Amino acid sequence: MNEIDFTWPQGFLTGTAHAGFKDGEKDDMAWIVSDVPATAAGVYTKNQFQAAPVQFTKVLINQNHALQAIIINSGNANSFTGQEGLDNTALANKLTAEKLGIDPALVGVASTGVIGKQLEMDKYANGLTSLDLAAESNIPEAILTTDSCAKQATVTVQIDGQAVTMTGIAKGSGMIHPNMGTTLGFITTDAQIDGETLQGLLSELIQSSFNQITVDGCMSTNDMVLVMANGQAQNAMITANHPDLAHFKQGLHYILVALAKMVAKDGEGSNKFVQAQVKNAASTIEANQVARAIVGSNLIKAMLFGEENNWGRIVQAIGQTQAQINPNHLDIFLGDLILVKDSQKMDVDQVALQGLLAADQIDLTVDLNIGTESGVAWGCDLTYKYVEINAAYEG
Amino acid sequence: MNEIDFTWPQGFLTGTAHAGFKDGEKDDMAWIVSDVPATAAGVYTKNQFQAAPVQFTKVLINQNHALQAIIINSGNANSFTGQEGLDNTALANKLTAEKLGIDPALVGVASTGVIGKQLEMDKYANGLTSLDLAAESNIPEAILTTDSCAKQATVTVQIDGQAVTMTGIAKGSGMIHPNMGTTLGFITTDAQIDGETLQGLLSELIQSSFNQITVDGCMSTNDMVLVMANGQAQNAMITANHPDLAHFKQGLHYILVALAKMVAKDGEGSNKFVQAQVKNAASTIEANQVARAIVGSNLIKAMLFGEENNWGRIVQAIGQTQAQINPNHLDIFLGDLILVKDSQKMDVDQVALQGLLAADQIDLTVDLNIGTESGVAWGCDLTYKYVEINAAYEG
Repeated sequence: MNEIDFTWPQGFLTGTAHAGFKDGEKDDMAWIVSDVPATAAGVYTKNQFQAAPVQFTKVLINQNHALQAIIINSGNANSFTGQEGLDNTALANKLTAEKLGIDPALVGVASTGVIGKQLEMDKYANGLTSLDLAAESNIPEAILTTDSCAKQATVTVQIDGQAVTMTGIAKGSGMIHPNMGTTLGFITTDAQIDGETLQGLLSELIQSSFNQITVDGCMSTNDMVLVMANGQAQNAMITANHPDLAHFKQGLHYILVALAKMVAKDGEGSNKFVQAQVKNAASTIEANQVARAIVGSNLIKAMLFGEENNWGRIVQAIGQTQAQINPNHLDIFLGDLILVKDSQKMDVDQVALQGLLAADQIDLTVDLNIGTESGVAWGCDLTYKYVEINAAYEG
Repeated sequence: MNEIDFTWPQGFLTGTAHAGFKDGEKDDMAWIVSDVPATAAGVYTKNQFQAAPVQFTKVLINQNHALQAIIINSGNANSFTGQEGLDNTALANKLTAEKLGIDPALVGVASTGVIGKQLEMDKYANGLTSLDLAAESNIPEAILTTDSCAKQATVTVQIDGQAVTMTGIAKGSGMIHPNMGTTLGFITTDAQIDGETLQGLLSELIQSSFNQITVDGCMSTNDMVLVMANGQAQNAMITANHPDLAHFKQGLHYILVALAKMVAKDGEGSNKFVQAQVKNAASTIEANQVARAIVGSNLIKAMLFGEENNWGRIVQAIGQTQAQINPNHLDIFLGDLILVKDSQKMDVDQVALQGLLAADQIDLTVDLNIGTESGVAWGCDLTYKYVEINAAYEG
């Protein structure tokens, strides 16, 4: 697997436009279109109030695991909008299919932005009129709300002896105007892969990528990650038995983790990126659970903002989970500095400690010493800026 | 039931002393002592790293549901201190029993303060020497760490035609020096009550009182609430069949809720007290779960600090739970102002809205319109001060 400069896989074109959902002149509509129908898979927020486009696209993909286009708007989440919201999503799907001259069953719809406001369909139709298809576009920027940077990654993997390209883009974690820190991710590849296989891989790999990031513990109504594989690389169909399935899986996981980390790093008000690794847990689920509890703890997040070593808070966060622990054999590391060994506080070099705490990236490692499984999670610190961003919204 | 001025029930004496666990001259040791052995019950933190005094006292009370004294220190939590911590707790128990001339099996031990530091037993023994027994003492102050106010409540309830007194004190949620926001609560009564009955009532009522508060989502290693009933009111033994059981239960619930609310109100950096009521849920557990999700959401807490009406965040928090919902029939109220009716955003009077948001207490009510059960939870807003307190700790 090689990471390469951002590029779209063969047979994908994109476009962006300004429809007016966001103030100013920024683009707030975009589409990703494949030359031919692509195999598709998706994962969706588990929030019980799923937004209309999430409900709609989930049904569509579950029917035949195929998409040819995804139409996306920012500035309005079309969430908590009732039947009118569902009708508007269906209309967005129909208008997009008409403009592209393709089957509406092949058009996914995604929205991000403010909750509880109906989508203005006149603006939507106007924006659609301005959309065209280009080999390059500023789509990674157009899907953002108040993110501070675009989030994109491209890799190639070897399938049947040839390079297959895989590209992902995501948005998330800026929240100055929208109500929710919604996360959206879109991954495209020119690989040829069976729909069930693709869905299986995505559902598995999302657990150790997007599902392992947290900025504020609040699960959005609009989260969705979609994958489109259009087969233009002409490889032999990837199924569960394909000899290079592992290569494809490695590439997909790399993209998912890379995007997830970019979202965590750009968390609201974030000053530091935080990675928590958990080793020797009784199960992968428990390792992931403990890692996420650490990056999700307000007390740990505030401590890291303050660049303090208050490791008792790490113990507290671990103990709050249901994961199996070994009370007298817990080890905690900051970078390569041992803070706690066999549940005993260690004397640490204060200069080295302060240097590690002052860095932009904090690496915490916990050894549970009870099993053999590991997990990792990503987040950011809790800053005055986070409170300011979320206290200042006027809506 | 009548709420009365703070007083200890018949047959309880208390005392406080300065042992030196905390800097300065503040008292940091205290005891509550009954003239005779009292029926006792306790509930304890579910954090897997239970502090030594929690482990010790839980075993003691489970053996025979009896206590005659509780010895308490602040400034050191004796948490994550291994075998030495357990030995120190046993020594604290033994020294206290010797000084009082009572059975060590009747002496509960509680600690609160910094995690991961061994208790200095020379200081402990010295502090114990200074403790005496008085009808009045400043014990509600002595058990505090950095709480901004003492937390206490007294009621009388009618049992067998006479007034029985019940008094509770608590600490919690100040965290400038200690590592964890530990909560401790101690309730005394002169009622005569069977141990199993008392434990059953406490275990039931804690669910809708202390277990329904949150300041930062972080479960302490030292939380513990203990009740002592010394029978000095000479009422007929309260068992499951006593005709006035409901009176006793009402009084106990009142004290538990009053103390829990005081702890939430004094949450770290708190600017506003927040109450969330959930009505017409499918079950009490789900009503409580939704109420706690609302007061626990960083996004809602920051919004209330900013005095903004961003009700989409309330929808998000409800949907994140597993509680049964009725997607098209959700109602949300701020005070008596309807923000959302049947899942539709309502036009609200902006002057009334701003007045309610500017108040020191915020009352949110959610009607799930799916069942008949209700629940309530209490918390506080998320402020710059919270970040400052938890970023500034040097330990």
